[in-house]
Amino acid sequence: MNLLKNRIVNEGVALTENILKVDSFLNHQLDPNLMHEVAKEFAHRFEGKGVTKILTIEASGIAPAIMLGYIMQLPVVFIKKKKPSTMENMLEAQVYSFTKQSENTVSISRDFLSADDNIVFIDDFLASGNAVRGVIDICGQVGAKIEALGFVIEKGFQGGGDKLRQEGYRVESLAIVDSLENGEVIFRD
Amino acid sequence: MNLLKNRIVNEGVALTENILKVDSFLNHQLDPNLMHEVAKEFAHRFEGKGVTKILTIEASGIAPAIMLGYIMQLPVVFIKKKKPSTMENMLEAQVYSFTKQSENTVSISRDFLSADDNIVFIDDFLASGNAVRGVIDICGQVGAKIEALGFVIEKGFQGGGDKLRQEGYRVESLAIVDSLENGEVIFRD
Repeated sequence: MNLLKNRIVNEGVALTENILKVDSFLNHQLDPNLMHEVAKEFAHRFEGKGVTKILTIEASGIAPAIMLGYIMQLPVVFIKKKKPSTMENMLEAQVYSFTKQSENTVSISRDFLSADDNIVFIDDFLASGNAVRGVIDICGQVGAKIEALGFVIEKGFQGGGDKLRQEGYRVESLAIVDSLENGEVIFRD
Repeated sequence: MNLLKNRIVNEGVALTENILKVDSFLNHQLDPNLMHEVAKEFAHRFEGKGVTKILTIEASGIAPAIMLGYIMQLPVVFIKKKKPSTMENMLEAQVYSFTKQSENTVSISRDFLSADDNIVFIDDFLASGNAVRGVIDICGQVGAKIEALGFVIEKGFQGGGDKLRQEGYRVESLAIVDSLENGEVIFRD
């Protein structure tokens, strides 16, 4: 998606060989027009597949996910990173975060995910894929089908996306970054 | 906003005299059409006021805020509840959460808030108003003007909204709940 790649090149900063800072449009400040274009592209890729629900995880996945839900006319559920005190009947999974060097419990209410669901999971970044593993775990607990996994930016060099593809998951990333070495963003063709 | 009030009556659950559970459409599962209607109503109330930016706070404020940003063609910034490891140059404020009985640091990059800004802050709930105090604190640190504070649901009986109004802030809540006693939702006229 060239519009997105141009924004990454023009505004993104390769802080280290692993960290791409895109907080001017994707995960702190949000550009609503870009989020809408991103969602249109996802909708184009996922239309006609019998998707019943969009899943995402707080917080940076919510903006593209709600735009996608609006375009596809589907409900959106955001997975919680902390178990809310006011919720019972939760599905849970453990997720290890390399960035934070800690394990978190992610959770979703059983009221909003079932064996009848065919879901698309949306997130801002795919790196090692640990958060996705939590989503796969949770969907497996109730027998929900995963139609596809959609990411705004995939850090291809961290390998999570290719591993998921090898396992047969449909992974759609709108920009795949294969290297951040020497402060330069190199995209996969 | 009758559409919203009907959803609260039909799907909301008064778990206690203080807690209104609306996780089927507002803060866990999200109804994109309702979020769009909510944003249209906010846009109607805030148009022509010279607003430069929409602020919100992760996570449940993001969906209505990004829809509002799209309609008003304004950037959205979501305030972080944890200080990100990859961000420097942050503005910070302390916020006490009654729900969680703990004090959190909320933060926003100085890159995305300045004395030139005239902001609207959007969140899903207004209760005692502690989170809003953090936002007011942060805006004050750089001299950003607060045009208005917009909430999808205000728990009027917790007093945060009326106190803010008395202090001169423009508070716009699309549904004000004055009581949850006996499991019944009573709206302010």
